[in-house]
Amino acid sequence: MSSVKAPDRLRLHGYAVSNYFNVAHAALLESGAPFELVECRASQSPEFLQISPMGKIPVLETADGWIAETVAILGYIEDRYPHTRPATAFLRARQLQLINVLQLYLELPMRSLYPGVFMGGHNSDAAIAAARQTLDRSCAALRQLAQPQPWLAGEQAGHADLFAFYCLDLAERVSRHVYQRSLLHELGLQDWARRMARRSSSQIVLGAFAEVFGTYLAEKQAAYPHAAEDLYAQSATASTRSIRG
Amino acid sequence: MSSVKAPDRLRLHGYAVSNYFNVAHAALLESGAPFELVECRASQSPEFLQISPMGKIPVLETADGWIAETVAILGYIEDRYPHTRPATAFLRARQLQLINVLQLYLELPMRSLYPGVFMGGHNSDAAIAAARQTLDRSCAALRQLAQPQPWLAGEQAGHADLFAFYCLDLAERVSRHVYQRSLLHELGLQDWARRMARRSSSQIVLGAFAEVFGTYLAEKQAAYPHAAEDLYAQSATASTRSIRG
Repeated sequence: MSSVKAPDRLRLHGYAVSNYFNVAHAALLESGAPFELVECRASQSPEFLQISPMGKIPVLETADGWIAETVAILGYIEDRYPHTRPATAFLRARQLQLINVLQLYLELPMRSLYPGVFMGGHNSDAAIAAARQTLDRSCAALRQLAQPQPWLAGEQAGHADLFAFYCLDLAERVSRHVYQRSLLHELGLQDWARRMARRSSSQIVLGAFAEVFGTYLAEKQAAYPHAAEDLYAQSATASTRSIRG
Repeated sequence: MSSVKAPDRLRLHGYAVSNYFNVAHAALLESGAPFELVECRASQSPEFLQISPMGKIPVLETADGWIAETVAILGYIEDRYPHTRPATAFLRARQLQLINVLQLYLELPMRSLYPGVFMGGHNSDAAIAAARQTLDRSCAALRQLAQPQPWLAGEQAGHADLFAFYCLDLAERVSRHVYQRSLLHELGLQDWARRMARRSSSQIVLGAFAEVFGTYLAEKQAAYPHAAEDLYAQSATASTRSIRG
């Protein structure tokens, strides 16, 4: 990030525990756009709801106004920085398809289990069973849709890769903890994930995540180990074989 | 629809009971694209999963391959038929934001109650309470995000309008049935919805919906009245005041 102040410099508001914040942060880094980060938490306060109507992070401040929802932030970056977009209408649509499947059928069911894993709460047996059913279907779909060649977006990494990588980061932790299943292994994405982790944007974003995640887990008295695993170490493979629960 | 066969004529596969099929159908009609409809149901059969990996409808057949997920189909139509897109990067992002809020926080919680309303099943008290909590937040967000001027997309109707209209059609029926709440009333969207219903695309799509919805409800032995209400009649207002449950 340069220190030159531009009138339309983008400002990304949020916090590195959020996988969605991390997707948007990585997309800004990859785009080459000048931007700043502004640390804030998700909130239902009237002030925050004015800028992010569901109270969620991330939210992007632009010269024209505020944009919430990560998929909308990605669309904005693609429009403003066309080198971040897949080359054809069909490939762009297929990227949107993959991102929507990840968002609805992988991220959301795994997110439904955050209370019992990351937040010191409890997951009911019914919630665990419901999330597993959706996960089984989305894993089968993703084995078809998410094939690295060598990136998910094709010859060059794109927003599909960033969205998948950061959603899978937390989803993998939840699925190992709750189901003793490695999604990366089931999806054949272990090598791709290690390649993703070596990108320079990932080094920055994963570094920021590592700085805050342990403290977050401790604050929440989470069941998940407060010294979180490195999912992308070369030696991690042997200990994370898939065990279908 | 013309009967001339073009090699890249689009074919939309699905069925008019699906609000998502209806969004895509209306978007194709509004775009002026040559297309055909192919009737099929959502299915988990191996053959159908090849073209729609989550087994969902709609799915769009193009000269380049298949596109599932309604948001991806809308993106494809916007790319191929640029007159369907909002004019600026910021407006396009805000449209994506609105569509994603509708999809995740209004459509999905109301869909979680389809079993007890439209499908002859049962909704647990916990499911009804959980959906209400999300709905309360999304209604507050949508009062901010979905302001007709005179359309949700601005001076001209756009994909935000189509997405909102067909999602709200089924969501309104669920919320009246389960909570005795009119979402259209709470959101101040009754006049907008009547204007939407008068569009020529809506006449076709709502006509196709009316032809199949009653039969669907009867087959499912649904709790919802099989002679479904006309939500957009001028006289409907008086009987649908919001009663917050």
